[in-house]
Amino acid sequence: MIDTYFSSRTSVRNFQKREISNDVLYSIIKNAEHAPTCGNMQLYSVIITRDPENKKKLEALHYNQPAAVTADVILTVCADFHKFTKWCEINNAEAGFNNFHSFIMAATDAVIFAQQIVTIAEMEGYGTCYLGTVTYNAKEIAELLKLPKMVIPVASIALGVSQKDEPKVERLNVEGIVHEEFYPELDDNKIKEIYKIKEEFEPNQKYLKESGKKSLAAVFSEIRYPRKMNEKISKDFSSFINEQGFK
Amino acid sequence: MIDTYFSSRTSVRNFQKREISNDVLYSIIKNAEHAPTCGNMQLYSVIITRDPENKKKLEALHYNQPAAVTADVILTVCADFHKFTKWCEINNAEAGFNNFHSFIMAATDAVIFAQQIVTIAEMEGYGTCYLGTVTYNAKEIAELLKLPKMVIPVASIALGVSQKDEPKVERLNVEGIVHEEFYPELDDNKIKEIYKIKEEFEPNQKYLKESGKKSLAAVFSEIRYPRKMNEKISKDFSSFINEQGFK
Repeated sequence: MIDTYFSSRTSVRNFQKREISNDVLYSIIKNAEHAPTCGNMQLYSVIITRDPENKKKLEALHYNQPAAVTADVILTVCADFHKFTKWCEINNAEAGFNNFHSFIMAATDAVIFAQQIVTIAEMEGYGTCYLGTVTYNAKEIAELLKLPKMVIPVASIALGVSQKDEPKVERLNVEGIVHEEFYPELDDNKIKEIYKIKEEFEPNQKYLKESGKKSLAAVFSEIRYPRKMNEKISKDFSSFINEQGFK
Repeated sequence: MIDTYFSSRTSVRNFQKREISNDVLYSIIKNAEHAPTCGNMQLYSVIITRDPENKKKLEALHYNQPAAVTADVILTVCADFHKFTKWCEINNAEAGFNNFHSFIMAATDAVIFAQQIVTIAEMEGYGTCYLGTVTYNAKEIAELLKLPKMVIPVASIALGVSQKDEPKVERLNVEGIVHEEFYPELDDNKIKEIYKIKEEFEPNQKYLKESGKKSLAAVFSEIRYPRKMNEKISKDFSSFINEQGFK
């Protein structure tokens, strides 16, 4: 039963027009709060976006992708050292969290928490999709959600009831992921072997054909995640982290 | 049943001397591979440390904390753009992943995957504990595990069979975590209300008494996660990320 869920789950990109009550939502989040957290500090917050006008603005910042548009709610999970720092200040304790390491700690905490929300929601029968675009427009998302200093959005979850069975997608063989004791040298043949399963997956072949590119690797690295875009987001996101107080 | 697990799980810091077979381990990891992943790129690897000599060295880099020492295996989950970049190069596709945003993408992917391993292992009856120290000595851990460029350890999981029932720990009330539509202004009273549950939790009161500090906040910010330490790790970790190829 457990196996069946974990080995068959897929993300959902089209949702029914059905509301998820706040009761359900809060119950999922309450349970997710028991996820592991750094020093039990719970360095995260989650903003629920449900109000239609607000949601439209947030959808746009996620490029109006179907998962965002059709989801009943969007959850923006944030790395949050704001409230913890304030707690320290109230107690005249020195809070030294305005640095890169503290951001990484809080971001890790937030992503663990986000993934627990996803798992619980899915096990309860709901569909979810991470909106990977959360870091693309982090500054604008922060403005929309009125995030104070030391709060950074790191994981967005579109949540709803799935419209249809989603097609199964391929995953790498476990040998391409796990290494015993040491990371081995991966020569060209080994690399080809690792990604063969992706190259042979029929929907990827179709996608490649339509793209006009010479390889599936190029579809990823030149169309979907091109250098220029990555470099622009790097610059914007790292300035934003600095502006928010993590130097 | 689902609720019961999620609302009652705790991390485990002391493990029995019992081996987890590779069969079990690989089955957990195979299932965890179905966790959501950025663009289905699976930008992660996991190194299994089991060999006694190797494990001793890794334990030391985690400050010989009991969870690391008593665990049967330590899993070091890494953000990995090494193999994906090589795949692009073999295909003469331009790989533009040597930047901060790509690191954040891969790190998020890796943490989601790590949390899926934790959940599956726990649901199968094993105990786990994240070793938050993974970023403290990231460079040394990378050397020990022979991680190539563009591979960064981001989540370490101690895995074993729990020795005893772990005490339940407190979590914040959901109101301190969830905000509807916007992040509200949190004045001093609200902050105090949020952290009251931690301050009133009996083991924390005991801990505070022993610490000689004036507040629980100071225990966290001056003893456990002091500024100097955070700043040193920030410097080391960000240099290491640069050296590994993410500029």
